[in-house]
Amino acid sequence: MNGADSLVETFLAGGVNVCFANPGTSEMHFVAALDRNPEMRCVLGLFEGGVTGAADAYHRMTGRPAATLLHLAPGFGNGYASVHNARKARSAMINVVGEHASHHLRYDAPLRGDIESVARGVSHWWRVSADARAVATDGAEAIRAARAGNGRIATLILPADTAWEAAEAAAPMLPPVRLHRPRPDQVRAAAEALREAGAALFVNGPVLHGAFARKAGAIARRTGCRLVTDLFVPRIERGAGAVAIECLRYPVLENVAILRDVRHMVLLGAGEPVAFFAYPDRPSTPTPAGCRILDLCDPEMDIGWTLDALAEETGAAGAEPETLPLDLPPPPAGPLTPTAVGQAMAALMPEGAILCAEAITAGQPIADATRCARRHDWLANPGGAIGAALPLAVGAAVACPGRKVIAPTGDGSAMYTLQSLWTMARERLDVTVVVLANRGYRILRGELASLGVAEVGRNAARMLDVDDPELDWVALAAGHGVPGRRVEDAEGFLDAFREAMATPGPRLIEARLVEARLTGAA
Amino acid sequence: MNGADSLVETFLAGGVNVCFANPGTSEMHFVAALDRNPEMRCVLGLFEGGVTGAADAYHRMTGRPAATLLHLAPGFGNGYASVHNARKARSAMINVVGEHASHHLRYDAPLRGDIESVARGVSHWWRVSADARAVATDGAEAIRAARAGNGRIATLILPADTAWEAAEAAAPMLPPVRLHRPRPDQVRAAAEALREAGAALFVNGPVLHGAFARKAGAIARRTGCRLVTDLFVPRIERGAGAVAIECLRYPVLENVAILRDVRHMVLLGAGEPVAFFAYPDRPSTPTPAGCRILDLCDPEMDIGWTLDALAEETGAAGAEPETLPLDLPPPPAGPLTPTAVGQAMAALMPEGAILCAEAITAGQPIADATRCARRHDWLANPGGAIGAALPLAVGAAVACPGRKVIAPTGDGSAMYTLQSLWTMARERLDVTVVVLANRGYRILRGELASLGVAEVGRNAARMLDVDDPELDWVALAAGHGVPGRRVEDAEGFLDAFREAMATPGPRLIEARLVEARLTGAA
Repeated sequence: MNGADSLVETFLAGGVNVCFANPGTSEMHFVAALDRNPEMRCVLGLFEGGVTGAADAYHRMTGRPAATLLHLAPGFGNGYASVHNARKARSAMINVVGEHASHHLRYDAPLRGDIESVARGVSHWWRVSADARAVATDGAEAIRAARAGNGRIATLILPADTAWEAAEAAAPMLPPVRLHRPRPDQVRAAAEALREAGAALFVNGPVLHGAFARKAGAIARRTGCRLVTDLFVPRIERGAGAVAIECLRYPVLENVAILRDVRHMVLLGAGEPVAFFAYPDRPSTPTPAGCRILDLCDPEMDIGWTLDALAEETGAAGAEPETLPLDLPPPPAGPLTPTAVGQAMAALMPEGAILCAEAITAGQPIADATRCARRHDWLANPGGAIGAALPLAVGAAVACPGRKVIAPTGDGSAMYTLQSLWTMARERLDVTVVVLANRGYRILRGELASLGVAEVGRNAARMLDVDDPELDWVALAAGHGVPGRRVEDAEGFLDAFREAMATPGPRLIEARLVEARLTGAA
Repeated sequence: MNGADSLVETFLAGGVNVCFANPGTSEMHFVAALDRNPEMRCVLGLFEGGVTGAADAYHRMTGRPAATLLHLAPGFGNGYASVHNARKARSAMINVVGEHASHHLRYDAPLRGDIESVARGVSHWWRVSADARAVATDGAEAIRAARAGNGRIATLILPADTAWEAAEAAAPMLPPVRLHRPRPDQVRAAAEALREAGAALFVNGPVLHGAFARKAGAIARRTGCRLVTDLFVPRIERGAGAVAIECLRYPVLENVAILRDVRHMVLLGAGEPVAFFAYPDRPSTPTPAGCRILDLCDPEMDIGWTLDALAEETGAAGAEPETLPLDLPPPPAGPLTPTAVGQAMAALMPEGAILCAEAITAGQPIADATRCARRHDWLANPGGAIGAALPLAVGAAVACPGRKVIAPTGDGSAMYTLQSLWTMARERLDVTVVVLANRGYRILRGELASLGVAEVGRNAARMLDVDDPELDWVALAAGHGVPGRRVEDAEGFLDAFREAMATPGPRLIEARLVEARLTGAA
């Protein structure tokens, strides 16, 4: 076996059996090794941002890391934005990046670049394999590093000769890195704080779905505290029967109002809430000045143990969390607004749907309208690098065959990674992309207004509007092999969305919104 | 004025009056400043790789740097691959990257990332502005840094508060960085070497076009040496009347044969020739073992002065360089091969055309067929990060209104940056994109064969082929607002290309090639 074989076998032995890939010449030995290991599922992306974004969602939905296969420094560069998002989502991911053969590195070949520099700034762990016999153990360490701290970015750089030269064997799985736990007195202090008036348990990450969410909900019920999370979270369970968790909003000043009465905030699997951007005259954090913040369990610590300890300390065992009711809105009619889109989705989306959402200005009305729909998962973009929805949809659909994936996305956002449409078609993924077409970077008009700019001149307008020419999303979808349909009113959207929910496989709906109301975004 | 105003005015004073942009919230003050300075031409790209690639071509065609405007670390990441290519092309470029306001950097906001790390590995110069009053002088230094060494990458990171707070004035242009020159004895030694049997003058960069090319051609004529350059060069003048310069090829072993008899190689504006990739049993450099290499003038030195000194030393003044004849091939007929595409281009493309070429497997036949067409410039991709042709075409067309731009590109390559089509439509650029559709990463099948892999299994085939589904380039073009046409034989291509040459404005021809002949690529 060669180094590439030893790495693929190490991955399979370590439970990493999906590889999102956009390989080049320096990765051809890895590709040849994949042929000898057909248990590894390979999913090709035509652009690296789609590859790394899919791996992010794969971890969010399965709790297991996927591998990615990227081509040298520019390949990692193209994947960087989605790795950034995955890092902020605290997803585990193992990037394998091909490098020139060691003896070729001294030359200034065209693709010679500084992979370590671009990888280092966004990876928690990275290594350049020294030789073919080290590749398997490096791979096992990459798996361990990716799984540490509830999910990290691991990047393994493989000079081509370390892939093609002889190796000995796959490496066994390494024992996991132990997670830190809070001290008993911290748990007691948190429990006391949560019983006070004006208490909030601020949660994120794995606390937002499944058994952990129910435990957090039971603690909130027992102590009477509020249960709150961020706006753009990796994955939250919503809809009928899901634990009721308050979500922050985008505008800083709205969050200041939401948190106005909080006097004691316990962080569990979450960092302190922070404004998305800073503005000249607004605060960077929405928490009131007098609020005491108890950092009980940061996102890299043992969240499950902490929840159990806190539940015991608060006597929450057996308490029933507050859950969301089923509350389906009436089918919308008339002009196609973001709210109408959300109402139609809520009315029609099936139990178990996965929403990969990145509509910046249109997202809040859709989130509001679907909150009490049938039970579903909602994946947002905690990293803010736009172009997330389509790659996430690919990864979620690969992770969860049998569940309908719905990707509401702004038109400006979707353009960054539209190549993911092709992967949906290639893999016959059950994804419905909903492009909320407002013909511009609507959020930026709001941001400009937040800066006090009332008049938008020619240069600025040409940086903010995407209406000359208008993008034709039905044509873009068709070009990638995905059937599409354009709708202009609520009835049309209802009909197209009903058809999409009834039909497996990828499709795209271009929802041409009526001119969005411009609110100051901050 | 605020910091953003002072920067835009500094740029304009320094001759930087084109800004390729994909801004976000952190750049809104810069956008507002652009409104107050309408002399700055702003060109919006929907993806950052298109933005930075356009700036690269703008410099190649004008010799002047353009600015780019990018959004935080992920924005630079998306632009990284094209910056890498620009670095290898030795283009000057000034990247302005917005950052969170200084007081917001201590928080882990979603878009907080390590901009310096991703920028550092690919920029020759970078700086984070300390405050608003420093921004203008930082901008002037960025211009000087970008112009140093015949073209460098300068990256200025602007925390939002340095853009929005008060500044004093624009900064004046700084004197340029002085270029190093070879010593007189080095010039004499080079002149002597070039008169020997088996001598070659190996050139690149600005030596490949205009007055510099004629001087190099005169030196070659006078000394009897060969005049040779690399395969993927930033810009070479070709066609009737252009100086005859031999070009290396892609396969290492072909280059070994081309350079077999070279005993003395003088480098002028060029690095030593290097193989694109390393292979287990092939050399990293094609130059014969016994060849003496004289590094007369590296690409960052004073190339014009060196050419003059060498011309004087060799008595080349007045010598007429060997030039290419006009040799238009007959119009092709029958199956649509890369050679047929090249022949049709050669027959029909107008004087002064600019070819932005990135067809990896199909590129050589097109280069061969068009070499003696009407006079034109040929821009290749010295960095190897694919997805270069469309962004380069945007930049070349912005730089040279009135000249027809033609972008032959592989289908796999074009997918990385297809959003550039929209900018062509938005700016009404006179670009004809020719997609050479072979439905796969044809080069990689060749590379796999070079590794001795004869049988391609399912996993590998699914990493190499882009035929399920096939991309519909006419639909993709239409989706971006560009008219397109699909052709399947040489007659059809001739007709479509004739129409494109006769009609100003953007258009796309999908040339569906007959199955490419698979040759070992190395």
